Amino acid sequence: MIESLDAIAGVGRDPGTGGYRRHVWGDADMLLREWFASEATARGMDLVEDGNGNQLAWWGSGPDALLLGSHLDSVPDGGAYDGPLGIVSSFAAVDRLSAEGFEPSRPIAVASFADEEGARFGIACAGSQLTTGALVPARALAQKDRDGVTMAEAMAARGRDPRAVGRTSWLADVGAFVELHVEQGRSLVHSGAPVGVASAIWPHGRWRLDFCGEANHAGATRMEDRRDPMPAYATTVLAARRLAIETGARATFGRIEVEPGGTNAIPSRVSAWLDARAGDEKDLSRLVTDLVTEARAAAAADGTALHLVTESVSPAVRFDGPLRDRIAATLDAPVLATGAGHDAGVLSAQVPTAMLFVRNPTGVSHSPEEHAEDDDCAAGVTALTEVVRDLA
Amino acid sequence: MIESLDAIAGVGRDPGTGGYRRHVWGDADMLLREWFASEATARGMDLVEDGNGNQLAWWGSGPDALLLGSHLDSVPDGGAYDGPLGIVSSFAAVDRLSAEGFEPSRPIAVASFADEEGARFGIACAGSQLTTGALVPARALAQKDRDGVTMAEAMAARGRDPRAVGRTSWLADVGAFVELHVEQGRSLVHSGAPVGVASAIWPHGRWRLDFCGEANHAGATRMEDRRDPMPAYATTVLAARRLAIETGARATFGRIEVEPGGTNAIPSRVSAWLDARAGDEKDLSRLVTDLVTEARAAAAADGTALHLVTESVSPAVRFDGPLRDRIAATLDAPVLATGAGHDAGVLSAQVPTAMLFVRNPTGVSHSPEEHAEDDDCAAGVTALTEVVRDLA
Repeated sequence: MIESLDAIAGVGRDPGTGGYRRHVWGDADMLLREWFASEATARGMDLVEDGNGNQLAWWGSGPDALLLGSHLDSVPDGGAYDGPLGIVSSFAAVDRLSAEGFEPSRPIAVASFADEEGARFGIACAGSQLTTGALVPARALAQKDRDGVTMAEAMAARGRDPRAVGRTSWLADVGAFVELHVEQGRSLVHSGAPVGVASAIWPHGRWRLDFCGEANHAGATRMEDRRDPMPAYATTVLAARRLAIETGARATFGRIEVEPGGTNAIPSRVSAWLDARAGDEKDLSRLVTDLVTEARAAAAADGTALHLVTESVSPAVRFDGPLRDRIAATLDAPVLATGAGHDAGVLSAQVPTAMLFVRNPTGVSHSPEEHAEDDDCAAGVTALTEVVRDLA
Repeated sequence: MIESLDAIAGVGRDPGTGGYRRHVWGDADMLLREWFASEATARGMDLVEDGNGNQLAWWGSGPDALLLGSHLDSVPDGGAYDGPLGIVSSFAAVDRLSAEGFEPSRPIAVASFADEEGARFGIACAGSQLTTGALVPARALAQKDRDGVTMAEAMAARGRDPRAVGRTSWLADVGAFVELHVEQGRSLVHSGAPVGVASAIWPHGRWRLDFCGEANHAGATRMEDRRDPMPAYATTVLAARRLAIETGARATFGRIEVEPGGTNAIPSRVSAWLDARAGDEKDLSRLVTDLVTEARAAAAADGTALHLVTESVSPAVRFDGPLRDRIAATLDAPVLATGAGHDAGVLSAQVPTAMLFVRNPTGVSHSPEEHAEDDDCAAGVTALTEVVRDLA
């Protein structure tokens, strides 16, 4: 299983940072698609790529299938496990059952969902959201990357037809989905368990805050004469942290663009992306409302303005209760909630869905430092194998 | 004269912002070099490009020359006047004197200094600093742009020899330098004068502050478990403004880079460039020291670290007293200081140097909104013509 991760360890890895840059329809993504296809072929599984770029490898066919899998793409400078661990573990579970001569009572499929991180076009879980209809094709196709390339253009450049984007027929054949994923926190460390079962995903969203002022000379313009948008952004960063700590929520500014971006020019615009999550929708909504109120006040005090764009908001996900309880009992595994979004959260709106987490010793994720011990990865494969044996 | 500015109005202008992006050794810069060469040729002036990429057009030759000129490059999204106004005004003054049959008693040259804004490689006044020896060639040549291209590579790509960079022999032939420039403030508006004479340039510098933390998942990492460098940056932005206002200085953060730069990733690093200026060296030094002390404390409180890199520090410039007084008397013009750096400030260390400023109705500069009225530009040409007539 770790061998299987090793096979793609060099794909999309930045030699400077050691982190992965696997973004949808980029060169690394295309290599990973070829790797997935060859893994399917090697097992005699039928390969399908749907109109959204999701890949599926089928063991059998027909209704009420048991779907496994995760994603292969990464955040900028992401780790080796977030996504790929679920896919290699799914193939490994198929191998183990197949070697035992296990004959499943229902079709089994392994999925690689496209663009889970949304690193290139700004919409997380784009592949799964398009599949369920949660994301409107026109909106997705018009999204631009940092170079101004739309998703439609990026697909066409790889020979994919943007008109094929949208709801897919294969979803009607899925009776249940189980996604295995590395934990992105330390709950399992505290539990002393290598594998856990998900209870829920926090509601979360992304907002773009455009602080707009006036460019001017950094040396010749008196502080009193400026309409500099940067201090209001700074005030907002500090307010976000304070509000998140006060409410037990999470708020992050991890991406920012400054125009014109010269050392000796006062900015005309600071665009900053807020990632916020909270235990329930009401808390999340209040956090963002309170933060924007403070940000607007700070901007107005400086003669600048704030424009808010809501890029995405995902409601809380509570995974299928009977499926969660059955898996937890089968594995004797702890049950935990997470602040991270997943394709499993998207599919859970239409299909009974469960998640397995594999222990992360440091809790670090979305970083080159992300890690899981080999023994824990092996325990993940064993757990997923048992789940499939029980459900299929 | 305005016609002359019109001739290059389309070069390097971004259609979206309306601002100029004329950066050294880029496509726009090469077109401007051709334009300068053709202006020299059209007047029968001898064209020289020195090893640093500075262009000079000579009317006569030999020692004790009177040098005019400015620069053609811009900050990102800069205005049409900052730099080019001085060059077109210099050519216009030459034209006017030449048409009158004026026979100068000394050689006259018009210079276009390379890379005054330092927008691409981060060192302001690189062309003039290399010429005087204030900047060591090896340091300049190793500077990288945002794509990792060194100045040496950028020069070589344009057929220039990086080994030719350094002190130039032509400087020994210069007896005085007069740079005309659009004002980057509103002193002349308050004075009610279209043209003024510079007394001094404030000391100024550029520092890069690298706030280093640890990348992690924006959703799954508790606020208490983060080592996020962004809040310390935010605290530093607000401290910079407060300290600058308290001390009558200027401090700006106009450029920032965030790694890894994903919306759902806590940053591992925030690099921010501080531009700071003050009335004298002691005030500037204290401002930066106090700011860095606060920044380090904020970083340490968050379990992050600050690394400081001093990119450049320019001492105060006090322009040649007798030359300043003679010009101010000739023109009956007001005398003013500026917070903006100029090639004139660099050359003043080795050559009697003066500056003329042309009124800027809004004071806005380093912005597409930068403007000067046609009548004031014409007054600038007249003033420069009178100065040349008096000095040559």
